[in-house]
Amino acid sequence: MSNAAPTPSPSASSPSTADALELLGLVAQLEHTAFVRLAGDCAIAPDVEQRLALSRFAAAAVERRDRVLARVAELGADPAATMRQFDDVLTEFDERTQPSSWWERLLKAYVGYGVADDFCRIAAQGLDERSRAVVLEVLDDASHAELAVAELDAAGSRDGVLSSRLALWGRRLVGEALGTVQRLIAQRPALERLVTAAAAEPAEAGDATADGGNAPAAGTATPNAPAKVFGELTAQHTRRMSRLGLTA
Amino acid sequence: MSNAAPTPSPSASSPSTADALELLGLVAQLEHTAFVRLAGDCAIAPDVEQRLALSRFAAAAVERRDRVLARVAELGADPAATMRQFDDVLTEFDERTQPSSWWERLLKAYVGYGVADDFCRIAAQGLDERSRAVVLEVLDDASHAELAVAELDAAGSRDGVLSSRLALWGRRLVGEALGTVQRLIAQRPALERLVTAAAAEPAEAGDATADGGNAPAAGTATPNAPAKVFGELTAQHTRRMSRLGLTA
Repeated sequence: MSNAAPTPSPSASSPSTADALELLGLVAQLEHTAFVRLAGDCAIAPDVEQRLALSRFAAAAVERRDRVLARVAELGADPAATMRQFDDVLTEFDERTQPSSWWERLLKAYVGYGVADDFCRIAAQGLDERSRAVVLEVLDDASHAELAVAELDAAGSRDGVLSSRLALWGRRLVGEALGTVQRLIAQRPALERLVTAAAAEPAEAGDATADGGNAPAAGTATPNAPAKVFGELTAQHTRRMSRLGLTA
Repeated sequence: MSNAAPTPSPSASSPSTADALELLGLVAQLEHTAFVRLAGDCAIAPDVEQRLALSRFAAAAVERRDRVLARVAELGADPAATMRQFDDVLTEFDERTQPSSWWERLLKAYVGYGVADDFCRIAAQGLDERSRAVVLEVLDDASHAELAVAELDAAGSRDGVLSSRLALWGRRLVGEALGTVQRLIAQRPALERLVTAAAAEPAEAGDATADGGNAPAAGTATPNAPAKVFGELTAQHTRRMSRLGLTA
């Protein structure tokens, strides 16, 4: 698998179908990774109720991944090959952020992979309409996050020491996650084109950092697009941590 | 969880709803175990195509388990508790049959768990009509078995040494699997009542060892029911091994 896009994009700031396929491959790989992780959680969960819930989340991740791969096939590309190029996308992140408890594992899923999902959501604004709809729909399923929030919130409110340890862990996670996104954008011009196009789009609902009236006209390249992305990712992270009553 | 059925069955040979719930719990647990195993295979599979296929089989096992648990809920019982009593049903079998290669692992899934499925299929003949339909439908999905057969058949036909090692492994697996079934029947009067009732039922399609005309009238207890079960399990095993070109 080469990193080069199969067809050259028409201009530096206008994403091509090949660019779209890169983001779709990344989202498919993230959902696949979520499946493997949730199934692993399921295998070690001490309680049958948790095992039932986690296995269902895992099965739902397979279904979401396959919806993304169906879009890849619609665009005429090979699903397995499109996904395979992102095989190692989280390897380094995972090596640097080994959780040492169930709570750290839970917070990592919510906060660490939350950043990856947010990044894909932002980049999706640069996609064609149909691909964007698939990605946003797939990333919209927050049922597993809700469970993590409920468990973490309950545990943190009972235990102040746990709470401040988790706040620290959250800061480490977001630092590593932002670093991963930064490397990804640097290594993949396709993703940079997508976030640049996305920054030029009018803000979507749910984009709380949007400054509506000042957004440039759609299609105009924004030179500081990556900086805007990191601003948004950080804002989303702060919101996520405060939902847990943790200091970001 | 106690082994005793919550309500006494009306006679020694007529299965009650509590008996039905035991078999449903066993089938749900087997499907859940299949999910965990397939997800584990997926996490170590070297090839993306295999990973995609295995994750889909895993998700399908969750869906099958949940169909069985829906029937448990229909019968007014608690799904998690009904499944929990079979938590350790394969622990000893798994400890005694650790596969030492990918091929041994594949044959174990096909041959070892095949025996468990066959046992449930036989016992299901003693269930009420609706529960029986759910169990037979759930156990009818052979897509994963087809993949195992294709891979094992191709590998065995290329390699005579592998073939005879796998034949030996198959004999060990079936011995351990039959032992597991034997202990299960001995420990669980509910399951014995079900196989006894099943042995008294007219043979179903697909039961190749049935001797049609000689079957006792439905509802009549058959004293040698367990012996008949083991005869059927062994015959199915022999058929399975010969599909692979292996000596049973």
